[in-house]
Amino acid sequence: MKTIILKFGGTSVGTIDRIKKISQIICSYKRQNNKIIVISSAMSGVTNDLIKKSKLISKNFDKAEYDVLLSSGEQVACALIAARLSHLGYKARSWMSWQVPIVSDGPHTSSKIIRIYTKDILNYIKLGGIPIITGFQGLNSEFRITTLGRGGSDASAIMLAKFLKADECIIYTDVDGVYTTDPKLHRKAKKIKYIQYDEMLEMASLGSKVMQPASVQDAKLNKIDIRVQSSFLNRPGTLIAKKQKRNFNSQIITGISTTRNDAKITIVGVKDKPGVAASIFEPLSKNLINVDMVVQNISLDGRKTDLTFTVKAEDVKKTQKLIKENKNISFKKMSFAKDLAKISIIGVGMITTPGITYRMFKALALKKINIMVISTSEIKISVLVSAKHIKKAIAALHKEFRLD
Amino acid sequence: MKTIILKFGGTSVGTIDRIKKISQIICSYKRQNNKIIVISSAMSGVTNDLIKKSKLISKNFDKAEYDVLLSSGEQVACALIAARLSHLGYKARSWMSWQVPIVSDGPHTSSKIIRIYTKDILNYIKLGGIPIITGFQGLNSEFRITTLGRGGSDASAIMLAKFLKADECIIYTDVDGVYTTDPKLHRKAKKIKYIQYDEMLEMASLGSKVMQPASVQDAKLNKIDIRVQSSFLNRPGTLIAKKQKRNFNSQIITGISTTRNDAKITIVGVKDKPGVAASIFEPLSKNLINVDMVVQNISLDGRKTDLTFTVKAEDVKKTQKLIKENKNISFKKMSFAKDLAKISIIGVGMITTPGITYRMFKALALKKINIMVISTSEIKISVLVSAKHIKKAIAALHKEFRLD
Repeated sequence: MKTIILKFGGTSVGTIDRIKKISQIICSYKRQNNKIIVISSAMSGVTNDLIKKSKLISKNFDKAEYDVLLSSGEQVACALIAARLSHLGYKARSWMSWQVPIVSDGPHTSSKIIRIYTKDILNYIKLGGIPIITGFQGLNSEFRITTLGRGGSDASAIMLAKFLKADECIIYTDVDGVYTTDPKLHRKAKKIKYIQYDEMLEMASLGSKVMQPASVQDAKLNKIDIRVQSSFLNRPGTLIAKKQKRNFNSQIITGISTTRNDAKITIVGVKDKPGVAASIFEPLSKNLINVDMVVQNISLDGRKTDLTFTVKAEDVKKTQKLIKENKNISFKKMSFAKDLAKISIIGVGMITTPGITYRMFKALALKKINIMVISTSEIKISVLVSAKHIKKAIAALHKEFRLD
Repeated sequence: MKTIILKFGGTSVGTIDRIKKISQIICSYKRQNNKIIVISSAMSGVTNDLIKKSKLISKNFDKAEYDVLLSSGEQVACALIAARLSHLGYKARSWMSWQVPIVSDGPHTSSKIIRIYTKDILNYIKLGGIPIITGFQGLNSEFRITTLGRGGSDASAIMLAKFLKADECIIYTDVDGVYTTDPKLHRKAKKIKYIQYDEMLEMASLGSKVMQPASVQDAKLNKIDIRVQSSFLNRPGTLIAKKQKRNFNSQIITGISTTRNDAKITIVGVKDKPGVAASIFEPLSKNLINVDMVVQNISLDGRKTDLTFTVKAEDVKKTQKLIKENKNISFKKMSFAKDLAKISIIGVGMITTPGITYRMFKALALKKINIMVISTSEIKISVLVSAKHIKKAIAALHKEFRLD
């Protein structure tokens, strides 16, 4: 008898028909004699309607009330699921976060779950019931409803898996798993059966929209196996696992991820002294401009250097203005280039396999794709290329690393 | 500095524009240096949508989950009102029933408020805040959400007025007060400025749809002044008060109320012995058939009697069947008449004024309206007439008792 967390996202419960469909999925797990705990997001349409209402009330809608408003959405979804399961003859009931309680901390609209009290839920499961719990929300120390921010329902599922010591956590969503690369950019993209947490983290933060990095991080810290699966298609999904279940003959590279709308800024002739990079980036950080790749040339004479870094295209103007106004630095000139894209190859295999960087660069060179900036981590190599080459670059790398 | 409860019904918060409008009303009370507590129903459209969803999920929707589902509606309304008040520069926050808590007892979908903890709310008011509290709902001893049934938000307002010892309770609704009779049936109907609890109770249970009798009863028991007012029109409403503020020259009769779809059943030749009426009505009561007016003829020989009573037209068939199947009674024959209506005159003034019954009967007789059944209480006289005479009867009585 396994304890399984089933989490359903907003589109998976987006209509009454979808709720009927996922109720069938829940029943099928229950019939296999598992202990089932369901976490649900709000119906996607309901959430959109609530957000629309909030905007009509105020452009500066009170954040605490925004949490009250939005959290009503999961309440509706959970009541409907529980009632549908009852209708089908199963023992089920809804639990709001404050009833569990799921204790949260931190600011409204982006709080974190710090504790879940499981006693009542475990008792109910013991009696054969299926608890249906609201995702995305918590109760803070002031006894107010909070929400967890983007991807928050995944976080709810993973934290429940942790506190309930669940065997498995299945995330039902509108995609059927994690792919080797974006299928829209490369038709040979393949679904990944197993992926390690760290790989998934790199995939996620580089643009794969399956799960928020914070939730993957939580799963990693708590060693919880996550299966990402489609509630629309009856197909095996992707397992994000604590142990690598991949066999030895398989790929060194797990996936290829890309970002768009990157821009590159180069500052020429910066005085090379300790703390100069910090002086440049401090005002950018304060203005919420996200600096991604950074390359500093070696200064041959020990006095001047060139600095190149990437930001999102929409931030270029503001970035240049902040640098010009910065009295703590001096430089000769500044240039920028837009319409760039970052392409990254990700895989824990590269730790133990030499020559991956060379193979990547060579594959791109053969296609005459110029690399502008390079950045590496232990399990990832990213390069900045012209956006017009992105599809060609993916195809070349997908083939080179045998992902086709 | 007065403590004022402001309650807004579903149509009063039915759209975003309505919420903006009633927020202005709330602010105007606050500016007059009052302590304000707001109770809100769900937006009428939201409630309708939730009910529709429930029907699509199951025709036998779980009652506890129905309460979870519907109570999300007040949550939405209160968050929007609180955020709107914040937007306008006022200190305001929402309170769900479970946060107050408002403690309820009794079955799901028709529970009763038994206790309200006011400490947090009073502290918040002391700090200059406006609490916005969900009507229609409570938290039961099992820590589950309940709803209060029809007119439940009025009950919430009145119980809050009781536990907060409020000076006034204003019910904002889509009608602008209580009228001497239904304006749709008589164009000379006038708004009543003051009405006593008992008169209102008779008006309410006889078809006036302004407030549920249970809420009026609660107000009476707790001596809470209620002002019924329109949130759509800026006009004085009706005060339902503990003290009669009417001056001595005014009407003896406060209002005229009517019901429709009444039917009359007569049982001829019933054995006249103690308990025979109970034997007849017991199976009707068990089958949820509501018997209204009852008349028993005097039995001249002390052995047989005739019994006439009224039920709703739709219950006639079932009533006749139950009487025929009843083995505890015997009778000679049974007849019925449909298309009847009950018309009642109500007023505490009749207690001290003789001759009201005579004036009523004479006014109807002059218009050639036949009276079929009569029933009286201390402050009410009801007569059963043919439904086709209803408008004519109202006009005659409205004039006779100087309500025009």
